[in-house]
Amino acid sequence: MNDLYPAERLRQVADGVRDHGLGALLLTPGPDLRYVTGYEAKQLERLTCLVVPAGGDPFLVVPRLELKAAQASPAGDLGVELVTWGETDDPFGLIAGRVRDCESVAVADRMWALFTLRFAEAFPKARQVLASEVLSPIRVRKSEAEVAALREAGAAIDRVHAQVPGWLRPGVTEREVGAKITEAILAAGHVSVDFTIVGSGPNAASPHHEVSDRVINSGDVVVVDIGGTMPSGYCSDCTRTYAVGTPPEEFAAYYRVLQSAQDAACEAAGPGVPAENVDAAARDIITAAGYGEWFIHRTGHGIGLETHEDPYIVSGNDTPLEPGMAFSVEPGIYPGPHGARIEDIVVCTSSGRERLNQAPRDLVIV
Amino acid sequence: MNDLYPAERLRQVADGVRDHGLGALLLTPGPDLRYVTGYEAKQLERLTCLVVPAGGDPFLVVPRLELKAAQASPAGDLGVELVTWGETDDPFGLIAGRVRDCESVAVADRMWALFTLRFAEAFPKARQVLASEVLSPIRVRKSEAEVAALREAGAAIDRVHAQVPGWLRPGVTEREVGAKITEAILAAGHVSVDFTIVGSGPNAASPHHEVSDRVINSGDVVVVDIGGTMPSGYCSDCTRTYAVGTPPEEFAAYYRVLQSAQDAACEAAGPGVPAENVDAAARDIITAAGYGEWFIHRTGHGIGLETHEDPYIVSGNDTPLEPGMAFSVEPGIYPGPHGARIEDIVVCTSSGRERLNQAPRDLVIV
Repeated sequence: MNDLYPAERLRQVADGVRDHGLGALLLTPGPDLRYVTGYEAKQLERLTCLVVPAGGDPFLVVPRLELKAAQASPAGDLGVELVTWGETDDPFGLIAGRVRDCESVAVADRMWALFTLRFAEAFPKARQVLASEVLSPIRVRKSEAEVAALREAGAAIDRVHAQVPGWLRPGVTEREVGAKITEAILAAGHVSVDFTIVGSGPNAASPHHEVSDRVINSGDVVVVDIGGTMPSGYCSDCTRTYAVGTPPEEFAAYYRVLQSAQDAACEAAGPGVPAENVDAAARDIITAAGYGEWFIHRTGHGIGLETHEDPYIVSGNDTPLEPGMAFSVEPGIYPGPHGARIEDIVVCTSSGRERLNQAPRDLVIV
Repeated sequence: MNDLYPAERLRQVADGVRDHGLGALLLTPGPDLRYVTGYEAKQLERLTCLVVPAGGDPFLVVPRLELKAAQASPAGDLGVELVTWGETDDPFGLIAGRVRDCESVAVADRMWALFTLRFAEAFPKARQVLASEVLSPIRVRKSEAEVAALREAGAAIDRVHAQVPGWLRPGVTEREVGAKITEAILAAGHVSVDFTIVGSGPNAASPHHEVSDRVINSGDVVVVDIGGTMPSGYCSDCTRTYAVGTPPEEFAAYYRVLQSAQDAACEAAGPGVPAENVDAAARDIITAAGYGEWFIHRTGHGIGLETHEDPYIVSGNDTPLEPGMAFSVEPGIYPGPHGARIEDIVVCTSSGRERLNQAPRDLVIV
């Protein structure tokens, strides 16, 4: 365990289980398990599960063949009992047998149905709720070490964006550019590539386009939205829009609107500000300029061990921002046959906000 | 749609829903959705879901901002209705409103609890079952196109193993070797790296070890178990054990046992043979030689769009193998302070079996 994954988290979570009146919390591999124990286990068909009962000590259930891997992980230093099961045992019955009768069980939000339904059978009297009820209020406020990890991720993805103009030219395909970006994301220090969106021409108007064999032409606008996971477990996510040669006049007009909306939304963030106000800050400017119908998604999402997590920057979310909350600010305008998006990761601080991406936001014409 | 993802699959699955007496099948992004529609959507917090009702036509629910991506995917050619939802809509209520009252709903095995619990609320009278009830019997028998895709994946990972001896030498760390393997997996044609196990010295006795900063020494044995996903969506998975310099004498003795057990298990596979007999073929030889207690896992797992899927080659699984079933054969012996595993992917054919990995199985001393 270290600054990023401190041992006291498990006690915090155990307190949360009792405070929420839950019988037990069940965490299978994924961001919740990693957050609480530092154990980066793979989600596979053999059950690995941290059990945090309201009455009694937490324990970690692992397949026998993964015992040494669990012991070698940060979870091995937590002082929790490691309970193994063999290939023909029933780990669900094993867990139910060790946890007292309980009325409710919280399951990791990303737990596979393969396990959720088996746990429903093993705890037939317990109501299932989502573990985020306990974990989200803790995870949403990043520690200094977590903010430092996100800052490092932001700097890494900025280094990739700095290279993108050199790869964009008429005649190359989105897929070719995407392959160079994939390599660069790893070379910049990420351990995995989470997504590579290279949306050129009409594909720039499809927010979750990935890459295609479309050949980039002169006059095209290209939305590049990329991110990966660092060795720390923390994620990067940054979007810039590039123009290959002179873009259409109407594009230049709405890009200026977008840039001012994105800037206004970043500046609107700060302690005590409801999350939806940050959305409104961008949306009001885009709507006033007549492009509201083309801004078809929320303004942002939280980021940490997951690329998308709380807090969501969306109409209806009146959660006040607090220092340590980290999220994207990424308005977009997609009228077709082109579109644009600008995205930075922003952290709420005690006095305002800090942007974790520094790549230029003015339109880059290559 | 193409040979790998033929359009008739959706009809096959719809028939399966009716044959199993289910009200509806719900597939969120993951291998099941890709198998049925060819759509490689990311699992994210916004719901994407293929709905296959027993009464009525299938439809695909997608977030509005992903409509163009869904249309551009193979799912866009299936002739199913695409139903979009906006950022502040409730897609679960939308689906429940379109599906008639039903008593049971099948959910994708990998569906997140985040969705499974919301669907339980949206269909309060329906029992939830796993979609594998319908899908596994279809997915487990690979078509010729799927076997060709697995063959291509096998050849790709063989090319990586061919390079491994060049990277193993005293003084390098497991992590350094792992980084070279990661690059090589991508260079060999995979689109993602699924796992990189480099277990040296005592770590060779930890079957699911990944990599560490341990420095490889002369006399070490190194288990290298690696795999990735090809552009087709199909996975590779192959293990070889290497020795850096002359290995301990007792190791050489049990490696010979392991090699003959792995060979016997491969040769035992064929149409009509119960899956557990393949496990027994390896286990009997290892047990007879006195190493049974150190073979702590099943002999293998099915492989296709997932690295681990049906059929499992494990005691208690008496499913008879059929032509097109593809699975790993990977016995291991882990007495410590070293260990060994040999793994090939094997496909059952009408007359016997085909191994999809050709890298040498004799102990490679580098």
